[in-house]
Amino acid sequence: MDAPKISANPCPIAHALASIGDTWSMMILRDAGFGSTRFEQFRAGLGIAPNILTRRLAALTADGLLEKRRYNERPPRDEYVLTRKGRDFLPIITAIGEWGRNHCDTRDLSYLVDVETGARIEAVVIDRASGRPLDQIDKRLVMPGD
Amino acid sequence: MDAPKISANPCPIAHALASIGDTWSMMILRDAGFGSTRFEQFRAGLGIAPNILTRRLAALTADGLLEKRRYNERPPRDEYVLTRKGRDFLPIITAIGEWGRNHCDTRDLSYLVDVETGARIEAVVIDRASGRPLDQIDKRLVMPGD
Repeated sequence: MDAPKISANPCPIAHALASIGDTWSMMILRDAGFGSTRFEQFRAGLGIAPNILTRRLAALTADGLLEKRRYNERPPRDEYVLTRKGRDFLPIITAIGEWGRNHCDTRDLSYLVDVETGARIEAVVIDRASGRPLDQIDKRLVMPGD
Repeated sequence: MDAPKISANPCPIAHALASIGDTWSMMILRDAGFGSTRFEQFRAGLGIAPNILTRRLAALTADGLLEKRRYNERPPRDEYVLTRKGRDFLPIITAIGEWGRNHCDTRDLSYLVDVETGARIEAVVIDRASGRPLDQIDKRLVMPGD
């Protein structure tokens, strides 16, 4: 999706996906959410080719989802830390995982637990005002200026 | 992300993203959620190259997010209808749009309204049991067999 087209697009989903980039980027964000910050951690965790990882980290940094910080001067070494924008995407990644658990035909999957209660976490997308799951709401799209 | 690696992966996020494919596929699902079913509707709505659209529709159909139905016999014409699996992904796409609204520097974006109440919809990912937004919960990852 090319940039000039996107900037004129009134759909926030198109803007979001242009900013995220691709599914590899979501996997990088997933690992960042679990504490990875260094190139080698991402590479080992994802089994991703170094040249692809370099490009995706640069794109996520340029788009403000990750922030590059120097952690060693000699030799120069940088790490990648989630920004507020990047952290705010993590619940969506968890919701994608929930969908994967419900719909992909695989057993023995990892899951998340609420540290406080010990209960297994089940991610649901709701509407903040009504508290209702989004798939139970009859929705209408409003274009800007309507 | 190649298939043999994915099938042995215990992470439901990896399975989900392998099933979805890429960000174009999410845009196709978005348009399917707004009622597009025919090749020409998707092509016109997304401004996507026909060969890419053909591949993505075939992949989404093979993965069970869309179902191909013949709507005309002579000439043969098919349409693509969301399955339960595909429909269940739509709230996530709305949540991605919410994130885009909050974090992408663009004004005049479209939005969704609750038809029943007339109120603007704001998508939030929560934990079903506690009802708390996912970003406010301290989480722990549990691997299968732990």
